[in-house]
Amino acid sequence: MPEDIIDYSELWPVAEALADAAREVTLRYFRQPGLAAESKAAHFDPVTLADREAEAAMREILDRERPDDGIFGEEHGVKEGTSGVVWVLDPIDGTRGFISGTPTWGVLIAAGDDTGPKLGIVDQPFIGERFMGGGGRAITRGPLGERALGVRDTTELSAATLYTTFPEVGTPEEGAAFERVKAKAKLTRYGCDCYAYALLAAGQVDLVIEAGLQSYDIQGPLAVIEAAGGIVTNWQGGPAHQGGQVLAAATPELHAAAMELLW
Amino acid sequence: MPEDIIDYSELWPVAEALADAAREVTLRYFRQPGLAAESKAAHFDPVTLADREAEAAMREILDRERPDDGIFGEEHGVKEGTSGVVWVLDPIDGTRGFISGTPTWGVLIAAGDDTGPKLGIVDQPFIGERFMGGGGRAITRGPLGERALGVRDTTELSAATLYTTFPEVGTPEEGAAFERVKAKAKLTRYGCDCYAYALLAAGQVDLVIEAGLQSYDIQGPLAVIEAAGGIVTNWQGGPAHQGGQVLAAATPELHAAAMELLW
Repeated sequence: MPEDIIDYSELWPVAEALADAAREVTLRYFRQPGLAAESKAAHFDPVTLADREAEAAMREILDRERPDDGIFGEEHGVKEGTSGVVWVLDPIDGTRGFISGTPTWGVLIAAGDDTGPKLGIVDQPFIGERFMGGGGRAITRGPLGERALGVRDTTELSAATLYTTFPEVGTPEEGAAFERVKAKAKLTRYGCDCYAYALLAAGQVDLVIEAGLQSYDIQGPLAVIEAAGGIVTNWQGGPAHQGGQVLAAATPELHAAAMELLW
Repeated sequence: MPEDIIDYSELWPVAEALADAAREVTLRYFRQPGLAAESKAAHFDPVTLADREAEAAMREILDRERPDDGIFGEEHGVKEGTSGVVWVLDPIDGTRGFISGTPTWGVLIAAGDDTGPKLGIVDQPFIGERFMGGGGRAITRGPLGERALGVRDTTELSAATLYTTFPEVGTPEEGAAFERVKAKAKLTRYGCDCYAYALLAAGQVDLVIEAGLQSYDIQGPLAVIEAAGGIVTNWQGGPAHQGGQVLAAATPELHAAAMELLW
C-alpha cells in the first residue's frame, strides 16, 4: 500500500491493543519488591524484565495483526517492514521513575513513517490513564472519564509552566540554555518523564524542554501534542521525531520565545 | 479524656471520612481549565479554591464528629481543643503540582498531640490511592488493591534512591548539604511533593530530604513512615513534627549516614 493512502485512523484498535498488553505486563512488575534493575550503560539506565516483556507482548500483536509494518522498539530493535508504516515503541519511558514507584512513567507507542509519527499514545498503566493523538483523535481516558485534549493559549514565558525531567537537562551547555528559559518562566517543575508531554497536551502545562532523547522517547508524545494543537520541534525549530534536543510548546508564540533563549 | 488513654485506632473512621471528603472536593477542581491560583507570598505559592474548600469540608466533619479535638489546618488556622487530640490538615500538599496536573500532590491528615502525630494519611485522590499509618495500621489502598506498607532494608547510601521536591532544596547552605548526600546516593529524583514520603513507606525509595517544611507538610507522612518502620527526624536527629528540615530514611544506618553529611 503506498504511503499516501494509509489511513492512520484505522490503526487505533491495534494501537490500543498494544497499550493494553503493555499495561498488563508492566503492572505485574510495578511496585513489586526486589524489581531487578541492570545498568546497560555508564549513565544509570535500569532495564527491567517488565520493559523487555512489555515490548515483546506488543511485538507479538504487531507480528500477528500488522505483519507488513516495520517496528522500532527500545528493547528489541528494528524490524523492517513493507507497508510504509513503522511502529515506534518504548515499553517503559521513565524506568528510573518506574523502579522508584512513581506514577509518571509511561508506555509510549507511535505509528508513522520517515517524516514522523502520525498517531501516538502515552499510557500510564498504574493510574489507568491513556492520552491519544493523531489519526483523527485528540483524547484522554482516565480517572476523570474521557475528555478532549487541547493545549492552553499561553503566549508569554512569564505566564508559562515549564517541565523537564532532570535539573541538569543534558550537557552543561544544554543545562545553561535551559536555565535561560527557566529564568523567564513562571514556574519550573522536574521529574515527570513522558507524563509532562501528556500534561502539555491536556492543557495543564505550557512548555517541556529536554535533551538527549531517543526517537522512541518522543514519537508517541509528539503525535499526542500535535493533535492537541501544540508544537514539538528540536531546539533549532527542525523536526524532533529523531530525538535529541526537544522543545514542546502550547503556542507558536511561546515556542518562538523559548527557542530564542535556547540558542 | 486524659491523653494517656487515647486509643488512636478508634479515630480511623473519622480520619478516612476526612480523606474521602477532601478527595471529593479536590477532584471537582483538579485538571479543570482556568483553575485560579493566587500568590499568597513573594515565593510562588498558589492557593486554590480547592485547597480552602477541602479543608472546610474536613473541619465540618471534625466539628460534628470530634467537637472537643483541636485542629490546625494550612488554610483556616488553629482551633483549640480540650480532648488532647489535635488534627493537623494540609488539604493540598503540592499546590504547584496540583495546578500543573501532576498526580503526586496529596491530602495530608494527622492526629496526635504535642509530642507528634499518632496516625497519619497521605491520600492521592486522582489515582485513588491512600497511605495510612499509626493507630494500628500500616497499609495502602489503591489501584493494586490493599497492601501492607513496609520500608526497604537499604543501609548504604550507594544503594539508596533519594527524593526531594525542588533541586535547590532550601537555602544555599541547605542545598549544599543536600548535594553532599546526593553525591553518594545511587539515584536522585525530584518533584514528588508528599508522594515521595508515601513511596518511602511503601518500600520504593530509601531517603527523602527536604527543608523549609511546615508542620502540616510533614505530620501525615511522618506517621505513615514510622508505622512502616522508617525514621523521620530533622537534620540534627531531633523531632521533625514541627517542620523545618526533614530527613526521612528507611533504616537507622541510612539515616545516620545521611545525617553525617547534612551537618
